[in-house]
Amino acid sequence: MSKLSVTLGIDIGGTNTVFGFVDKEGKCVAESSIPTNAFEPAEKLFERLFPQVDAVYQTIAKNYYLVGIGIGAPNANYYTGMVELPPNLNWQIVNVLEIVKKYYDIPSAITNDANAAALGEMKFGAAKGMKNFIVITLGTGLGSGIVANGDLIYGHDGFAGEIGHVVVVEGGRQCGCGRNGCLETYASATGIRRTVFELLCNSNDVSQLRSFPFEEVTSKMIYEAAVSGDKIALAAFAFTGEILGKALANSVAYTSPEAIILFGGLASAGDILFKPTQKAMEDNMLNIFKNKVKLLPSALHSGNTAVLGAAALIWNELEKDKVQLKENVPVENWDVM
Amino acid sequence: MSKLSVTLGIDIGGTNTVFGFVDKEGKCVAESSIPTNAFEPAEKLFERLFPQVDAVYQTIAKNYYLVGIGIGAPNANYYTGMVELPPNLNWQIVNVLEIVKKYYDIPSAITNDANAAALGEMKFGAAKGMKNFIVITLGTGLGSGIVANGDLIYGHDGFAGEIGHVVVVEGGRQCGCGRNGCLETYASATGIRRTVFELLCNSNDVSQLRSFPFEEVTSKMIYEAAVSGDKIALAAFAFTGEILGKALANSVAYTSPEAIILFGGLASAGDILFKPTQKAMEDNMLNIFKNKVKLLPSALHSGNTAVLGAAALIWNELEKDKVQLKENVPVENWDVM
Repeated sequence: MSKLSVTLGIDIGGTNTVFGFVDKEGKCVAESSIPTNAFEPAEKLFERLFPQVDAVYQTIAKNYYLVGIGIGAPNANYYTGMVELPPNLNWQIVNVLEIVKKYYDIPSAITNDANAAALGEMKFGAAKGMKNFIVITLGTGLGSGIVANGDLIYGHDGFAGEIGHVVVVEGGRQCGCGRNGCLETYASATGIRRTVFELLCNSNDVSQLRSFPFEEVTSKMIYEAAVSGDKIALAAFAFTGEILGKALANSVAYTSPEAIILFGGLASAGDILFKPTQKAMEDNMLNIFKNKVKLLPSALHSGNTAVLGAAALIWNELEKDKVQLKENVPVENWDVM
Repeated sequence: MSKLSVTLGIDIGGTNTVFGFVDKEGKCVAESSIPTNAFEPAEKLFERLFPQVDAVYQTIAKNYYLVGIGIGAPNANYYTGMVELPPNLNWQIVNVLEIVKKYYDIPSAITNDANAAALGEMKFGAAKGMKNFIVITLGTGLGSGIVANGDLIYGHDGFAGEIGHVVVVEGGRQCGCGRNGCLETYASATGIRRTVFELLCNSNDVSQLRSFPFEEVTSKMIYEAAVSGDKIALAAFAFTGEILGKALANSVAYTSPEAIILFGGLASAGDILFKPTQKAMEDNMLNIFKNKVKLLPSALHSGNTAVLGAAALIWNELEKDKVQLKENVPVENWDVM
């Protein structure tokens, strides 16, 4: 039996670095993780990471052949291979792809987690077969990956897709970027927490969220409160959806996507978030786009979604290279390279 | 001597339809125009247009060979060849490329005027060699053409690039699209006129613009008043630039362009518009993009710029086809096809 190709997807988060081996259908055949240790330099992370990767690879090496490495990391630049001043890591500026090359002599690529998510949805998820769509990742912040004409938009400098930093409220909430009113200060896990506290101050409604300090309230708690009928929590989701939906209506005017896909923790709130978002999006949409753009949840379910995204990045690169370098050689045949 | 290739660029405006023969360097070798007669159906326009086109072609046919037709028209859809409910023409919905095919059996393509302008700048103008940029056309309304990864973004349905209809002031000025606060209600020839009248009402400053009714004030008059030191006119340009600059800072967050190019009547105001726009853009830019994005005037100067854009559209198509169909055949050799 000939071996099947897999790529290694690595997602570097502030707390954990997760990795997995993903086949070209998006099946994660083995995965594991190590703590990131955010205060260490990048080199140390990879010193600890790659022996673990090799150990896991040994368990599948009989049946699989590693053909590339894709990495998702905060503030990662696809063009340069650099990660620059990542907000939750003490890395400063580091060329990650150069470090990787010291360990593995196979194709590798890096991008930020939102771009990786977009490629993951295109290859394995809700955007299969689409050539124009936007993925919005709702995590601590709001990230986005924009695909147009079938290609991810990296922009001139590799930093395209910062929809989280589109200003949606003039003079609004203070943002980590140093400005005010950015979308992510409203539509994100931290944004909805801020909204809860604004509502707790403006309204007299009883709420189970009144018994927790700011720092302890999570989007999961707000979701659970909303499900149990908590008025403040429900109003927080309604407000978040309204701001997000309006912003998405504006986004549609740029690239006219077939779909917008919501990804990440907050997106798993389902209808409680999707309904007000969809309504605000349609209510504020330019007529030529009305009722045309699908609002979809992520369809990445097998294993760690960020690992699938990182793996999709390098699958995508390998297929681009294939087209240019070796036409019509089936991917399976790479196994014997 | 072998003949040189030219394409026919046609720009269909509400008043005039201008056409010209443009070589692959962007030189317009012959051009002319006819009245559009906006109340006639589309078929009638082309019945009158093509005999004129043929007459002009006869004057250059000894030296040039026509290889394609590019058309810029309001509400034109690149994918379908249709023009749908153009605001200033009594056309309803019409398949323009089908009409063209009845007259000429050569490659043809259509898009809206802003997209044509973007292709014109890429091929012949300020965006030569750029793969990521945005062209903003400041006419009666505000149009835009967005290029990413070297390709114009048409989006899923052919209507991408409606930056003029991004809402920039919540509950702001009434827009022709039926909504409020769209960018083009502020940043366009009609937008700056509205701003002048807002300033005339809010301020007691003396202004030569106080002696004209709303309908008679043009952006050219406002420009001339500004040049002569008229405070209201200067304030109107400052306000227009501020709104436009803020909106452009947000646009950069989507596609991270190398440059934004201002095109069209209002853009020819030069520093009076560019300075406040640039300042507002930089003041409101996310730090990773600060001082990176060039704000440039159009560099299409030879002949009618809209004709150059329409010609660039079809040159672009012909070159894409060439790459796919007949690699490395120099364009000159098409003459003998």
